[in-house]
Amino acid sequence: MIKPDFNKGNGLIPVIVQDYKTNEVLMLAYMNEESWMLTIKNRKATYFSRGRNKLWLKGERSKNFQEVKEIYIDCDNDTLLLKIKQIGGASCHLGYKSCFFRNENGLIISEKVFDPKEKYNK
Amino acid sequence: MIKPDFNKGNGLIPVIVQDYKTNEVLMLAYMNEESWMLTIKNRKATYFSRGRNKLWLKGERSKNFQEVKEIYIDCDNDTLLLKIKQIGGASCHLGYKSCFFRNENGLIISEKVFDPKEKYNK
Repeated sequence: MIKPDFNKGNGLIPVIVQDYKTNEVLMLAYMNEESWMLTIKNRKATYFSRGRNKLWLKGERSKNFQEVKEIYIDCDNDTLLLKIKQIGGASCHLGYKSCFFRNENGLIISEKVFDPKEKYNK
Repeated sequence: MIKPDFNKGNGLIPVIVQDYKTNEVLMLAYMNEESWMLTIKNRKATYFSRGRNKLWLKGERSKNFQEVKEIYIDCDNDTLLLKIKQIGGASCHLGYKSCFFRNENGLIISEKVFDPKEKYNK
């Protein structure tokens, strides 16, 4: 089993999240060692939220879990790549399939799957 | 034009680099504002090397430049995604097409394009 190096980024490493079928990049998140251990144990992506400063099981509120299909590590052992199945079809909290829904000119190029007001503000 | 937010990561933001044709993720690097301005001006990926603490035109030694085809930004404006054409066919300094050449079991799953000893230690 690979051993990510959590020392370089003050305990956090970036994690690229990709659709396991289409290879579309869906989001980038961060993991600490605890979230890494939970992810490989449960095969559901668990991150560390820098904003909330706590563990974050992706989908804990929306139930849009990320089922982990494949995991890769880079040459420096300080970045992970997950290929996942996105339950619900949208990875972005704004309702888009991908967080990278804008191109360099600010044009929206990704599909909106849900309305975040309906999803979160019940 | 989009404006990446360089404040959150102490002046550096992560940049996901993807093959513009196959969507294979090739590497993750970092940019500061200066490297971002150079990248959009020259359409050749320019990063900031955390290890060497300086600007890094990808390919400056190997001539394996990355021609920038498309740029995307995420919902928080703190991560970029580049779709690029990798000159020479390999993004990893170890000679692999992708830096993510190992899966979670440590098995090598990416193609080796060049021998780094021949490429760099002339």
